[in-house]
Amino acid sequence: MKEIRGGITAPMGFRANGIACGIKKSNKRDLALLVSDSLCDAVAVFTTNRVKASCVNFNLGQLKNNRTQALIVNSGNANCLTGQRGMRDTVKMAAMTSRLTGIPKGNVLVASTGVIGEPLPIKKICAAIPPLVKGLKQNRQVSRHAAQAIMTTDRQIKEIAVQIEIDGKKVRLGAMAKGAGMIHPHMTLNGKGHATMLCFVTTDARIDPRALKKALVEATHKTFNMITVDSDQSTNDMVIIASNGRAKNKIIRTGSFAYRKFYLALEHIFLKMAQAIVWDAEGATKFVTLNVRNASSLNDARSLAIMTASSSLVKTAFFGCDPNWGRIAARVGASSHGTAASGHAEAKVDPKRLTLKLGNVTVLRRGAPCSPAQSSLNRLFRKKRINITVDLGLGRYHATAWTCDLSLGYVKINANYRT
Amino acid sequence: MKEIRGGITAPMGFRANGIACGIKKSNKRDLALLVSDSLCDAVAVFTTNRVKASCVNFNLGQLKNNRTQALIVNSGNANCLTGQRGMRDTVKMAAMTSRLTGIPKGNVLVASTGVIGEPLPIKKICAAIPPLVKGLKQNRQVSRHAAQAIMTTDRQIKEIAVQIEIDGKKVRLGAMAKGAGMIHPHMTLNGKGHATMLCFVTTDARIDPRALKKALVEATHKTFNMITVDSDQSTNDMVIIASNGRAKNKIIRTGSFAYRKFYLALEHIFLKMAQAIVWDAEGATKFVTLNVRNASSLNDARSLAIMTASSSLVKTAFFGCDPNWGRIAARVGASSHGTAASGHAEAKVDPKRLTLKLGNVTVLRRGAPCSPAQSSLNRLFRKKRINITVDLGLGRYHATAWTCDLSLGYVKINANYRT
Repeated sequence: MKEIRGGITAPMGFRANGIACGIKKSNKRDLALLVSDSLCDAVAVFTTNRVKASCVNFNLGQLKNNRTQALIVNSGNANCLTGQRGMRDTVKMAAMTSRLTGIPKGNVLVASTGVIGEPLPIKKICAAIPPLVKGLKQNRQVSRHAAQAIMTTDRQIKEIAVQIEIDGKKVRLGAMAKGAGMIHPHMTLNGKGHATMLCFVTTDARIDPRALKKALVEATHKTFNMITVDSDQSTNDMVIIASNGRAKNKIIRTGSFAYRKFYLALEHIFLKMAQAIVWDAEGATKFVTLNVRNASSLNDARSLAIMTASSSLVKTAFFGCDPNWGRIAARVGASSHGTAASGHAEAKVDPKRLTLKLGNVTVLRRGAPCSPAQSSLNRLFRKKRINITVDLGLGRYHATAWTCDLSLGYVKINANYRT
Repeated sequence: MKEIRGGITAPMGFRANGIACGIKKSNKRDLALLVSDSLCDAVAVFTTNRVKASCVNFNLGQLKNNRTQALIVNSGNANCLTGQRGMRDTVKMAAMTSRLTGIPKGNVLVASTGVIGEPLPIKKICAAIPPLVKGLKQNRQVSRHAAQAIMTTDRQIKEIAVQIEIDGKKVRLGAMAKGAGMIHPHMTLNGKGHATMLCFVTTDARIDPRALKKALVEATHKTFNMITVDSDQSTNDMVIIASNGRAKNKIIRTGSFAYRKFYLALEHIFLKMAQAIVWDAEGATKFVTLNVRNASSLNDARSLAIMTASSSLVKTAFFGCDPNWGRIAARVGASSHGTAASGHAEAKVDPKRLTLKLGNVTVLRRGAPCSPAQSSLNRLFRKKRINITVDLGLGRYHATAWTCDLSLGYVKINANYRT
């Protein structure tokens, strides 16, 4: 596997564009379109929030046949809690895209992200679709424009592309993503499970749809579902993968060596995009990796990692460069009650077996404090990257969650989001 | 029921004191003692955090006989995650108190609150117990001193006393409480449930211990377990009620009119103390009441109310005086997955039946937005008290949670807690 330049248009047969249609007051790009030259197999995971945006409900219906050829995305407005008008507007976006691209309406997907509860400025969007379609191209510039057009409070463009070899054939995967706040994803295939983050992956691989779905679910649980910015799950989260088979490789099936290669490439893309969201998190000044080791089950490990990473007290201590590890241990204990994110009821924690490391410094060993030099801890916490390891001493399951600090900047951004 | 002046020493037969023993660098009061002239029936609820402070484990053992006569409390240090030394220190505090008061060791309770993971300065505490005991009195000044001595980041002293009449006899209840951060209580009788908040209630009522326990549990679930400052459950939370029967009323049993009177007085005390904690919450500039109406079950109502009140995005919007109701609705949807706080797996939410009111202004009616005048919403959100009503339109169960905003002040306080 090697990273190559570009994003969603790096695989063969995909074209894209991103323009400004006037939803954002700043007049930045806010409307993106992605099309494949031929029909794609498509798999997706969606937010499990009970309050779902129109586009999520629409795509759940569209993807029953596991096919797509076009995706239109607007930023600046989530089109969520907008009543019946909301769904009408989503359908209009798809219909207009269909008419101008010639792609059947049943194969068009829609995504929206932004403020909740305000009607979508559908006229502006519809007026912009003709130039959007006209400008579709397959180059690095348009893939960047599309990636810009899906951003909200993001400061950084998030795109990536990788290339692998399957049976002598070059196979490419490309992706764009957005997300900086309302980030605590828990996405499942049927939208029954937490984030607004969006990630769209294109690939020219020929891959069995069941293999694609398996790879999507596995990689989502290890990456996107293990990041948190503010513990608030969005109404619009989705990850969509579209494969058009243009690489003409021997079809990839689960269990094969080729599948493993493809899976690792996909997980690499997801991990990079998930980490990019955390690096770009609203107001963040730190990037924190929280490892849970030796849990009784994989669910326990994941649930404790993400819940501990979600604590406001732990996150303000990171912001303050304060190695206040007691807060971390307290949160591990509190999190054992189970979490919304994991859908998991209760995790095993035994304070007498609990070991806690800040970086490489052990501060608590099997329940007893170690009193390391405060100066070395202070040094660790002044760094931009912080690594925490919680060893439960109970089993053999591990998981990692990624988060940021809770800063003055986060509060400022979110106290003034709409003003 | 009428409120009377004073706190824990308002009921007959209770004496108290609060002094500075040097745990707090500020040299403020940090050691409190409460004793009853005669043996009390005692009931208590404790944090359900798996990581429990030494004092919580100690009291769980001490209260097996449901009796107490003395309580010693230090602030400035939680004596939690302090290994075997931690428990030895707790035992020492109780033993020293026993020796100097003449109260059997088995009847002394201990509470600690403050930083986690640092050894208790037991020598300072032991040196201060003699003057602490010597200064025990039954007046309003000492009850205030005791209430001050249990404070950490609290700015306000929290104490209350009420008087009721049971069969012609005057019965009094008094209380002191603390809490401003790490507040998301879920306390149960056996410490298997969430907060650091402490509340100690004294009463001279004669009441059957089973009735006292029932009243404690019911009132805790409606009040303390329905407040949240930062969604972080403490390792040290506890509420203890001690009754010495000095009022010589006819014994209060469950089901009676007298029980109802007593219960209402207790609930009033708990509610006032719980709300005082929210008013005094770290950095808070707003007091928010979040009502959930017409849920399918009481558990659903409580779980949705507390989880919605816990959202960082909702709370930063309060701080910003921004009536961004989409965040509230999104959080209701996300919270339906169930919560750690409630121990409850899943709550029913149907977006099509969801009605949302900010103050008296309906912004969402059965899933459709109402577009009220923005100016009236802005006016509502500039007030110090904000009322939110989430009507699920599903059943007939209601619950209320109380919270504050997430402010720049909260982040500043918690980024610098130990420095």
